[in-house]
Amino acid sequence: MAQPIPFTKVKIVSSFWDSHIEVSRKESLPIILSKLKSYGTWDAMRMKWKQGDPGVTPDILWDSDVGKYVEAASYALYHEQNPDMEAAVNEGIDMIIGAQQEDGYVGIYHTLVEPGKRWSSLAHNLELYGGGHILEAAVTRHIALGCPENDKFLDAMNKYVDLIIKEFGPGEGQRHDYPGHQEIELALMRLYEITGDRRCVTLAQYFIEERGRTDAPRDGHAWDIAARARGDDPDFFFPYYWPRPRCYWHMQAHAPIREQKEIVGHSVQAMYWLSSVVDVALATGEQSYLDTVETLWKDMVDAKMYVTGGIGSVHIYEGFGPRYDLPNETSYAETCAAIGIMMLTQRMLKVRADAAVADVMELALYNALLAGISLDGKTFNYDNPLATVACSHKRSEWFKVFCCPSNICRFLNSMGGYLYGTDRVQDTLRFTVHNYVGGEVTVGQSTWVVETEWPWHGRTSLRVKDTSEPTIVRLRIPGWAKTYEILLNGKAVKHEVVDGYASLPALAYTPNDVINFTADMVAEHLAAHPLVHQNRGCLAVRRGPIVYALESVDHPDVPDLRLVRIDGAAALEPVDMKILDKPVVGIRTRATVVDVPPQEKSSFGGEDKVARTHGESPVELTFVPYFAWGNRGLGDMRVWIQERSNRG
Amino acid sequence: MAQPIPFTKVKIVSSFWDSHIEVSRKESLPIILSKLKSYGTWDAMRMKWKQGDPGVTPDILWDSDVGKYVEAASYALYHEQNPDMEAAVNEGIDMIIGAQQEDGYVGIYHTLVEPGKRWSSLAHNLELYGGGHILEAAVTRHIALGCPENDKFLDAMNKYVDLIIKEFGPGEGQRHDYPGHQEIELALMRLYEITGDRRCVTLAQYFIEERGRTDAPRDGHAWDIAARARGDDPDFFFPYYWPRPRCYWHMQAHAPIREQKEIVGHSVQAMYWLSSVVDVALATGEQSYLDTVETLWKDMVDAKMYVTGGIGSVHIYEGFGPRYDLPNETSYAETCAAIGIMMLTQRMLKVRADAAVADVMELALYNALLAGISLDGKTFNYDNPLATVACSHKRSEWFKVFCCPSNICRFLNSMGGYLYGTDRVQDTLRFTVHNYVGGEVTVGQSTWVVETEWPWHGRTSLRVKDTSEPTIVRLRIPGWAKTYEILLNGKAVKHEVVDGYASLPALAYTPNDVINFTADMVAEHLAAHPLVHQNRGCLAVRRGPIVYALESVDHPDVPDLRLVRIDGAAALEPVDMKILDKPVVGIRTRATVVDVPPQEKSSFGGEDKVARTHGESPVELTFVPYFAWGNRGLGDMRVWIQERSNRG
Repeated sequence: MAQPIPFTKVKIVSSFWDSHIEVSRKESLPIILSKLKSYGTWDAMRMKWKQGDPGVTPDILWDSDVGKYVEAASYALYHEQNPDMEAAVNEGIDMIIGAQQEDGYVGIYHTLVEPGKRWSSLAHNLELYGGGHILEAAVTRHIALGCPENDKFLDAMNKYVDLIIKEFGPGEGQRHDYPGHQEIELALMRLYEITGDRRCVTLAQYFIEERGRTDAPRDGHAWDIAARARGDDPDFFFPYYWPRPRCYWHMQAHAPIREQKEIVGHSVQAMYWLSSVVDVALATGEQSYLDTVETLWKDMVDAKMYVTGGIGSVHIYEGFGPRYDLPNETSYAETCAAIGIMMLTQRMLKVRADAAVADVMELALYNALLAGISLDGKTFNYDNPLATVACSHKRSEWFKVFCCPSNICRFLNSMGGYLYGTDRVQDTLRFTVHNYVGGEVTVGQSTWVVETEWPWHGRTSLRVKDTSEPTIVRLRIPGWAKTYEILLNGKAVKHEVVDGYASLPALAYTPNDVINFTADMVAEHLAAHPLVHQNRGCLAVRRGPIVYALESVDHPDVPDLRLVRIDGAAALEPVDMKILDKPVVGIRTRATVVDVPPQEKSSFGGEDKVARTHGESPVELTFVPYFAWGNRGLGDMRVWIQERSNRG
Repeated sequence: MAQPIPFTKVKIVSSFWDSHIEVSRKESLPIILSKLKSYGTWDAMRMKWKQGDPGVTPDILWDSDVGKYVEAASYALYHEQNPDMEAAVNEGIDMIIGAQQEDGYVGIYHTLVEPGKRWSSLAHNLELYGGGHILEAAVTRHIALGCPENDKFLDAMNKYVDLIIKEFGPGEGQRHDYPGHQEIELALMRLYEITGDRRCVTLAQYFIEERGRTDAPRDGHAWDIAARARGDDPDFFFPYYWPRPRCYWHMQAHAPIREQKEIVGHSVQAMYWLSSVVDVALATGEQSYLDTVETLWKDMVDAKMYVTGGIGSVHIYEGFGPRYDLPNETSYAETCAAIGIMMLTQRMLKVRADAAVADVMELALYNALLAGISLDGKTFNYDNPLATVACSHKRSEWFKVFCCPSNICRFLNSMGGYLYGTDRVQDTLRFTVHNYVGGEVTVGQSTWVVETEWPWHGRTSLRVKDTSEPTIVRLRIPGWAKTYEILLNGKAVKHEVVDGYASLPALAYTPNDVINFTADMVAEHLAAHPLVHQNRGCLAVRRGPIVYALESVDHPDVPDLRLVRIDGAAALEPVDMKILDKPVVGIRTRATVVDVPPQEKSSFGGEDKVARTHGESPVELTFVPYFAWGNRGLGDMRVWIQERSNRG
């Protein structure tokens, strides 16, 4: 089983990624901290708030907001010192420890606002979610500090884990319940990874197994039971984010894990859940979990994922809609969900190096995820549309639910851990490259140097700094690459391809050796599955890992992007350009624009003229990378563009 | 100015409408009452609830729920006695009066749950909304009882009005504020209509004028001021139904009335608001209000209305989206908003009989509105999609926000007031027919009998029961009728057409005279404006006032309605059929179905094959009236159907 090479062994030196990572440290993290302070979140951790105080009442999400800032900043500090950030992290940690209750409980809402209601609404009150994020922060900080022997933060969170291990489980006197928003499960598995404490696996598995079960000896669904216990009637009660009562599918708790055949509900939750399911499967050997992951993955990728890798098509419950129903203007595609894809695919790639899985990781990384942050790092997207109308969307500094910005920052500052895998085949060291990002990576005893022109050109070179033991180098061949080449020291090298990964023969590499891998990036049109009604008659543009979009700011003479008609036979010409300071490759192509007919009479959405033809004018289009949209002022954007036909 | 002929002078005897009206009385109203009881709303009016009681905490919407039931039932009882319903109405009225505070305040939430916070959050706490609906109930009950001299309900609500006239206004010591959800304004105008109390007009106008103003001597926006006064920071605070802080546009309070040039925000609110604006304009002569209504109406009808007459394309805030952005699967098209169109158009037709306005009234009536209730009256729609996927929508018995069912019932039981107008031209009586519904109507001293085959055939006859004074009969010629005929006693009659209304010469009609009006209903295809991206390449079907849809239940061999390709040149054949017991006219036509290609590999929403062609098979389609969809079990429905092209 190939382990991901951890971020501690990867250094990123990338003409593409450096600017994004840098602004996340210089701009985003300070902005996040300042928003946490101005909103009241940060200071609430001092535990001085009481009923009747002015300002915002502490919220069930605040623990996770603070935990995620601490975690993201801990990653950033690992790579680059920053005294202010270091002080903030230490302050945050001290406040978290200070806020912890005697018995280990962590959660300011149920300490300050509704004491005595602990655990009463696990489905909705985000207790284990907040605790889980703080636990992740402790694990990350521990690793980032080099695993010191004395670590009061980790000690505190171990005490929290002791508490929840006691509270939740199948025993008499224990609570037979499980969280709504999954998070604690994967956090427990991260703790297990550094402590080896099997009780973490047991509890994570308990939550996974128990979820959605109603069979004997249970008296019904755990959340029905909990609702009645607190005086809510599950036939009537439902929170504002459910359309009606008992939407357990929203949280993937409508059925036991082995019975779930479709991916449903909240996208971020689904990704966090399945990530933990893979973790527990690998720790316990429970193959049926991997079968469920495979089935749900296929449902998602075949029919519930946007061309950008974004997931979630329904705003009202932030989640998956029906198969092949992918509206563009109202795509939800939450940034956190794209990060969830990184987390899940990283784990799936432990099970097997499958290029189809890593292709999706790459797709989401360069498109759905990266669109979540502005080029200058100062604003963020929560939901990510694939089209706007009347300038209906722009990034923001802050959201009441503040999960996405810190999530992007923690991803960018730990992304080294998502690039490579390593294992042994019989006794031979194997080094697997899932994603092509410049920098250095330690594999076994050797340091490899990776240089790449990704994502603009598919040329990558790999060499060691010092002679390696015999190593099998395994490279992902992206599914979009119709042709590729692997050279060793300038000569074509024999290689096996299994599941889209090319394995070179085992070799003890010397600093004189160089592997040159080139995946040919060719701009092309994409058409959607015919059941995706929204995209019928439309084309999108892709080149390598980058999916493209039109922006109105580049087309001042086009009155509305909805009037553009592209020609699937016209050439797509890559051009070097800049979005603000960032060099990118754009795509030029010739197209037409429909002349807007004057509004003749009030037509209430339908007009009784069939085969209405319109005049058209030629236009030259410039497509830009989707991730870079919305950085040059307010305007419209569109990914799927209507193709020209004689009906106008 | 033509006054609507009130419901008290109209009797509906309609082979089309009778069944809908009957089930609203026999099924819907009893269901509504039983839900109000089982949820706790009804009994909360007894004012015995206290903090800590089990069950649902009384909600700010409950006053309006009870008021709307009482109002709808009052209308129903006017037409048809029912001892149980009479008892319930009297009980409701007694509870309302019993719940009223000493000083006249009406509103159980701020009496029981948050006393002392009265008026503190007018934007959000629905106080004047609840009071307004109860006021409407009192006015309706008064009229329905024949305007008795002693009316304790009306007395109680007059006391409420005295209170709010004192509280709100420009004077020192008064609150310079106005409600979020508009309703009180039109309720005050209804009271004015029966009492002649000008203070109602003054207060309604105050609310209308003040809305959105920030100019001196004001210290800013009234809702910013109110937020700070109660300790909320308007830079941060926002309720869950706003995407971010300060979404005053959501409630049409982002600018003063004369500056508003586009219709925005919550659709129901917009309709209630504009209805009251017309009322106040007519009572004060304020022409600028009518200009605003005209401008916003045009924006709505030209570019923000569905082909069914539904309005509201954005779920998250239940309102208008950008121009020409009309998603079908996620159309909001709230049933209450379609009823709002009835209310607004009824008032607009007082200003001028304009067939373009009455056409929209008819469109919404037979499509967007009627779709809101099942044929058996037992279930309702809140939002009304124009397409479903994977059976994603069905009507429900109950919604946590329970506004639509009682609204439909009150409309159906008062619809007589939306059909006709009367006025004098110089001194000659004029009788205007806006909508064609069978029954009787009193015009002046005469009773007219109307018989019609609407909406299935355009043949209508009108005759008096007793000789009339000289009367100008004025008939709307629907915009969809390319040809029509008006006969008087079998002979073509000379008539002027102004704004789409045909005026016959003044005549003293005798019982021997008969007017036969025939508007030719021809099934036709509709195409959408090219900026409506969602409908490009699609056609819809209409015949007369009825807009049609496909249902999967009629097409068991079609795997998915999204694969149907209709032919704009194929004949559309009207056929008599039944939906359950209801005779309707369906439309048959020949079309094709695309063969679904097997899923070759995970394609994540895009496939890199252009000009993919598919096999197709012939199919015979049966379109059914959109209002009747979803009555024959769970299935899919679609209004806009893809047109066949060679790309598949």
